[in-house]
Amino acid sequence: MGKTIRDQLGRVVEGDKALVTPAVVLVRPQLGENIGAACRCMLNFGLTDLRLVAPRDGWPNAAAEPMAAGAIDVLENAKVYESVGEAVADLKFVLAATARRRELEIPVIGTGDVGSTLKTYSREGTATGILFGPEKAGLTNADVVLADAILTYPVNPAFQSLNLAQAVNIFAYIWASAEDGGAPPDLFQKDISGIANREDLVRMFEHLEDELDDAGFFYPPEKRSLMSQNIRAPYTRARLTAQEVQTMRGIIKALSRGRGRGQTNRGQR
Amino acid sequence: MGKTIRDQLGRVVEGDKALVTPAVVLVRPQLGENIGAACRCMLNFGLTDLRLVAPRDGWPNAAAEPMAAGAIDVLENAKVYESVGEAVADLKFVLAATARRRELEIPVIGTGDVGSTLKTYSREGTATGILFGPEKAGLTNADVVLADAILTYPVNPAFQSLNLAQAVNIFAYIWASAEDGGAPPDLFQKDISGIANREDLVRMFEHLEDELDDAGFFYPPEKRSLMSQNIRAPYTRARLTAQEVQTMRGIIKALSRGRGRGQTNRGQR
Repeated sequence: MGKTIRDQLGRVVEGDKALVTPAVVLVRPQLGENIGAACRCMLNFGLTDLRLVAPRDGWPNAAAEPMAAGAIDVLENAKVYESVGEAVADLKFVLAATARRRELEIPVIGTGDVGSTLKTYSREGTATGILFGPEKAGLTNADVVLADAILTYPVNPAFQSLNLAQAVNIFAYIWASAEDGGAPPDLFQKDISGIANREDLVRMFEHLEDELDDAGFFYPPEKRSLMSQNIRAPYTRARLTAQEVQTMRGIIKALSRGRGRGQTNRGQR
Repeated sequence: MGKTIRDQLGRVVEGDKALVTPAVVLVRPQLGENIGAACRCMLNFGLTDLRLVAPRDGWPNAAAEPMAAGAIDVLENAKVYESVGEAVADLKFVLAATARRRELEIPVIGTGDVGSTLKTYSREGTATGILFGPEKAGLTNADVVLADAILTYPVNPAFQSLNLAQAVNIFAYIWASAEDGGAPPDLFQKDISGIANREDLVRMFEHLEDELDDAGFFYPPEKRSLMSQNIRAPYTRARLTAQEVQTMRGIIKALSRGRGRGQTNRGQR
């Protein structure tokens, strides 16, 4: 699997070929605020194809833009349809997001598999999409029957009504997290070249233990070896950087100089 | 692997034993609407322990309830703290949700592993939590350094600012969707039953830094905050046991008493 590259709109591209990202289809949405918030959630995770089926308050809707919080391209490029059938006409794989059990012979898929399924389709150039129902009533069976599969989230059965934008949010997250298996982005891959040499670590231990000897810390003397091990273990475990070892040396010096005498003696040890 | 059963508040229980679910800690949140929306997202996925650190508009906040949309138990049981340190005092594993790279020696974990790690802790009865920063500024480094690890979402680099409730929503989904029983990654293999409370760790930091103040270590003064973060990071990272924190306290006392004076003053500080 090649490295994921995104274009300026945040769409996933690979090499020169743009992936076809899933369309988010809001069916008869009621509140402009939720439509705007959905735009933000989509773009946060690289989705840009928003489709609205018969939005209750018409389109455009002034309440949407503030909640889009900058995802204006998604908002302005939203397409409006009169029916679900028209909205999904060009799609080859359609999901319906619903928490209700339906008496329909449509397979139900969980969130574990759906991300990689959609990514595979996208890589093949297959157009996909997902239906979200209106805030109050959810999708009708007539809507759901246009889908290839039902997607259901692992919600709390005692409190299962998700806000519309939050439902879109989770879908967008599932999409974005599928490809890389949830590994942190490259940005965060820590360079460990800064880890201290073991030699510097041992010198730090000796410095600390010399000072503790002077302070009468190791008592009774026959326990010195065990106490020393217990002191060393957490520092080894923390994998101190070279800089942190220097800081620790400074701390040991400062403390062992005695309280209140540090400033005058600075640098003299 | 037993079937997951939830109680009426939506908390995950298994047999008779309630799992300790992760605390959601909103640090200096600005908008009551977002706090309310976070409650709803939490309860949708079975989280109930909400903690607020210094909410900008005080607490309670009338703007929160409409957005909680029925998750009133979560809202009313929210606890308010003055500082992050107090809010996480009883927790043994703390995450910080942030999209910014930090110059801190704190591991970054991806969303792929975190759910099962948290589930494992919960099953052991280990208290965990996650910090979310204020809407505009996000978490400060001083906040992040109180966490064991940074959690980052696979966001679109061209549009990465998530709404606060949206960020909570994804975390709650990750919690709910995590497979039970997955082995935690190597980072977490240590048996953490003996891990120090965060409160004890913070007290240890304060003890150390008080002594370092007396010793004139923090120089120049304007760098105190940065120096303090650098001192704290490796200890947080090492995940000190309660016993190790005691040992560290002893070391700080012994050293700061001044060289050669330890034995005579033993136990008097």
